[in-house]
Amino acid sequence: MKVDGKKYRTIWLAKDGESVEIIDQTKFPYAFEITKLHTMEDAAHAIRVMQVRGAPLIGATAAYGVALAMRADSSDDALDTACSVLLETRPTAINLHWALDRARKSLIQVAPEYRAVAAFTLANEICDEDIAINMAIGMHGMELIAAVARTKREGEPVNILTHCNAGWLATVDWGTATAPIYMSHEGGIPVHVWVDETRPRNQGAFLTAWELGHHGVPHTVIVDNAGGHLMQHGEVDMVITGTDRTTATGDVCNKIGTYLKALAARDNNVPFYVALPSPTIDFSLSDGIREIPIEERSGEEVSHMTGRSRSGAIETISIVADGSEVANPAFDVTPARLVSGLITERGVLSANRQAIAEAFPERVKLSA
Amino acid sequence: MKVDGKKYRTIWLAKDGESVEIIDQTKFPYAFEITKLHTMEDAAHAIRVMQVRGAPLIGATAAYGVALAMRADSSDDALDTACSVLLETRPTAINLHWALDRARKSLIQVAPEYRAVAAFTLANEICDEDIAINMAIGMHGMELIAAVARTKREGEPVNILTHCNAGWLATVDWGTATAPIYMSHEGGIPVHVWVDETRPRNQGAFLTAWELGHHGVPHTVIVDNAGGHLMQHGEVDMVITGTDRTTATGDVCNKIGTYLKALAARDNNVPFYVALPSPTIDFSLSDGIREIPIEERSGEEVSHMTGRSRSGAIETISIVADGSEVANPAFDVTPARLVSGLITERGVLSANRQAIAEAFPERVKLSA
Repeated sequence: MKVDGKKYRTIWLAKDGESVEIIDQTKFPYAFEITKLHTMEDAAHAIRVMQVRGAPLIGATAAYGVALAMRADSSDDALDTACSVLLETRPTAINLHWALDRARKSLIQVAPEYRAVAAFTLANEICDEDIAINMAIGMHGMELIAAVARTKREGEPVNILTHCNAGWLATVDWGTATAPIYMSHEGGIPVHVWVDETRPRNQGAFLTAWELGHHGVPHTVIVDNAGGHLMQHGEVDMVITGTDRTTATGDVCNKIGTYLKALAARDNNVPFYVALPSPTIDFSLSDGIREIPIEERSGEEVSHMTGRSRSGAIETISIVADGSEVANPAFDVTPARLVSGLITERGVLSANRQAIAEAFPERVKLSA
Repeated sequence: MKVDGKKYRTIWLAKDGESVEIIDQTKFPYAFEITKLHTMEDAAHAIRVMQVRGAPLIGATAAYGVALAMRADSSDDALDTACSVLLETRPTAINLHWALDRARKSLIQVAPEYRAVAAFTLANEICDEDIAINMAIGMHGMELIAAVARTKREGEPVNILTHCNAGWLATVDWGTATAPIYMSHEGGIPVHVWVDETRPRNQGAFLTAWELGHHGVPHTVIVDNAGGHLMQHGEVDMVITGTDRTTATGDVCNKIGTYLKALAARDNNVPFYVALPSPTIDFSLSDGIREIPIEERSGEEVSHMTGRSRSGAIETISIVADGSEVANPAFDVTPARLVSGLITERGVLSANRQAIAEAFPERVKLSA
């Protein structure tokens, strides 16, 4: 999307045709910096320190990492080493696994002298596929937004609440939850986004607010506590969030606090949509609450906060009474009964086993 | 309650018999400091800058402020001036109005030479009444906790979630939502409190965690997003919050985000209780969502955060992307249908017009 009028992706082949450029997301929201990746080790480092984050972008970066490795040494051994080094950067990231597996399987069949070119081609392909999926999600989601817009007075914006960052910064471009929003905005449908701060890591206030603001989409940051009140007073027309993992039955595992917004949406007849690329559907799962283990992250994420002080320095401060215990579950599960629809690249589906299976029959077969 | 083993109230007559001492709550949670109020102006300042906060404590401080004024000059004029200066400190605080009204009406009938003594006596009385109400709330609430404890294995704690600070620091002693918790703890019922951080002002992480910790009550701080997930997994036995204002029908206006916890409690069959001294019931209101105006506070409370930096200094940092709009509604309304019971000084009531009217018939008559 755009940053102050100029189009960007989160990752791209540099003009020299040899290195890869990324937006360094560790500098957000206080600086916009582009960093060059020259080697596979640079790519691994970028994933490890979260200069890139978000499942699709991590997968794309890993694919470029393999390509950079192949340019230096295209032997079978080098391919294996690259894949295992990159896999170690964030072992639980599903797209990382998937992208490296795909790269290895495809490149091992290519003669070493052609591997570098093939690897760069593959990485570009992975990026283009991500964009194609997100644009399809955007088109389907835009129809939902357009339907609400038709019920409004001319020029009155559709108010959409989102939680966390399922934005273009988490993907190669467009984002998932944000794709319908950007597409509506580009298409002339007036939108306004309520951006949940998303404690404890503040991805909403830091990333979603940043990307919407720099693209020019009207938005307002609120604390995570405020969404229910806004819905009670008719200030929210729909909710769109992303998801980390979706069960075959439509339960949605997403950033902690998503479930609370889904409950408030239901209580106020506000539609609650989840945007997802189909690879995040896990056809082996039927009961999200019972089957999906929830990562317990460091309490320091809750007890400390980092931001810019009045002097301009980036400071970390303590924000919990000394000596108190802290718990930090990172995700929660929103049961399918609270989900109005899953916005996928193949259309908006009801959140139930049959609708999901009918839209992705080949995936059901694979997991059977 | 206790601070590291020593008993305190939040406000008390100093040993000199002439000045008043308070805990300076602007220093929380990083320092515990006691401040002396020598004059009415000191008391007004303490309320204005929030060295004291919480409706009951504000009322008590105002009453002592009048007493300090009467000691300096006990004329009718001085009484009027004291009341109007103190009322201006936080014009929307209901207990402030009530305490000053009571003080003025009672003292104007006393001969000036006895007014100082009468005023100090009245302030002491107001404090004792607050404590008596909170202890009654504590006793009734403790029965609810004890009933849950009986369903648990020996020694297994009752897990109670609370939002914001309706603790002893907001009252003269015991608190409202915390009174049942402290009383259970003192009575040997094992309790563990999930403390919502309570963005944007972090009263949970700053105040509730501080007071529970220093009294020795086991507790864990969580972000406001986490409560629903904990309830889904059986980690919460009951919710107890306070309230700023309750309608005659049992709708509860409390800190923003309370409604989301009530929804999650209902969805998971977790009882949701609201502790309240009956003066916070407004018998003129029937529909909390439609009738209670919600204060929109400064966006700076959301976009900036204050805490202790690694160097030990108290720093304020910016935590929202530059240029983004911010909204900050301070309260929300939880409809009576989501409230399992109102814990009042006269017992635990169903949240409906009839039960409330039966418990407080004299108030209904007054408002008729």
